[in-house]
Amino acid sequence: MATIFSKIIAGEIPSYKVAEDAENYAFLDINPVSKGHVLVVPKIEDDYIFNLSDERYVSLTLFAKKVAKAVDKAIECKRVAVAVIGLEVPHAHIHLIPISEEKDMDFKKPKLSLSDEEMKKIAQSIADEFNK
Amino acid sequence: MATIFSKIIAGEIPSYKVAEDAENYAFLDINPVSKGHVLVVPKIEDDYIFNLSDERYVSLTLFAKKVAKAVDKAIECKRVAVAVIGLEVPHAHIHLIPISEEKDMDFKKPKLSLSDEEMKKIAQSIADEFNK
Repeated sequence: MATIFSKIIAGEIPSYKVAEDAENYAFLDINPVSKGHVLVVPKIEDDYIFNLSDERYVSLTLFAKKVAKAVDKAIECKRVAVAVIGLEVPHAHIHLIPISEEKDMDFKKPKLSLSDEEMKKIAQSIADEFNK
Repeated sequence: MATIFSKIIAGEIPSYKVAEDAENYAFLDINPVSKGHVLVVPKIEDDYIFNLSDERYVSLTLFAKKVAKAVDKAIECKRVAVAVIGLEVPHAHIHLIPISEEKDMDFKKPKLSLSDEEMKKIAQSIADEFNK
């Protein structure tokens, strides 16, 4: 069965897309830890990032770097932090989380609740930087 | 002034080394979030992982993948999680953290206190897998 991320990539489930290339896809986390929290996923399904071939892994991590630079420009923050946990959805994914303090990257705190309009605006601002 | 990580790489400050290549170095975090918590750093000093050149970044992330596979084999866990926060030490570094549940990757909980002997044993077991 297709993972929720594969359904998002296929457009069967809507997402706030920020970037895409031939092998990878990036979109806003709908339960963001901070404003501009992005998920970066490979288009192929593999449930563990370290099981990707070196080629796919490099493709994914370089794409994530490019997305992170765009987030850096679009969102006010000190850094874009990275987390890969991988026990939530069986499809490898990288969290990119804009932070200003170390404690900002806390998956336990209540998630932000942003309106559809705000999410669209954030996604568009990151997409604009990515495509520059 | 050299960062603490540059001093560790140079051997001026002792570390529980687990792996090294021409451009990168991996050692146990002395305040581990979980048993087998490793820090992976590039030998050159740059305070932000996304400011590394693509070449250096790929070198670092592929090295981290190889170290993570060794941690996976040496330490009992479901996954090796990844975190890059980057506000603590001005020298880019990747945390590799063996986890069995999502909540295991929690930088806020009290860190483990392991004896010198235990740390040496853990480092050696990861190094042995890395060098296989």
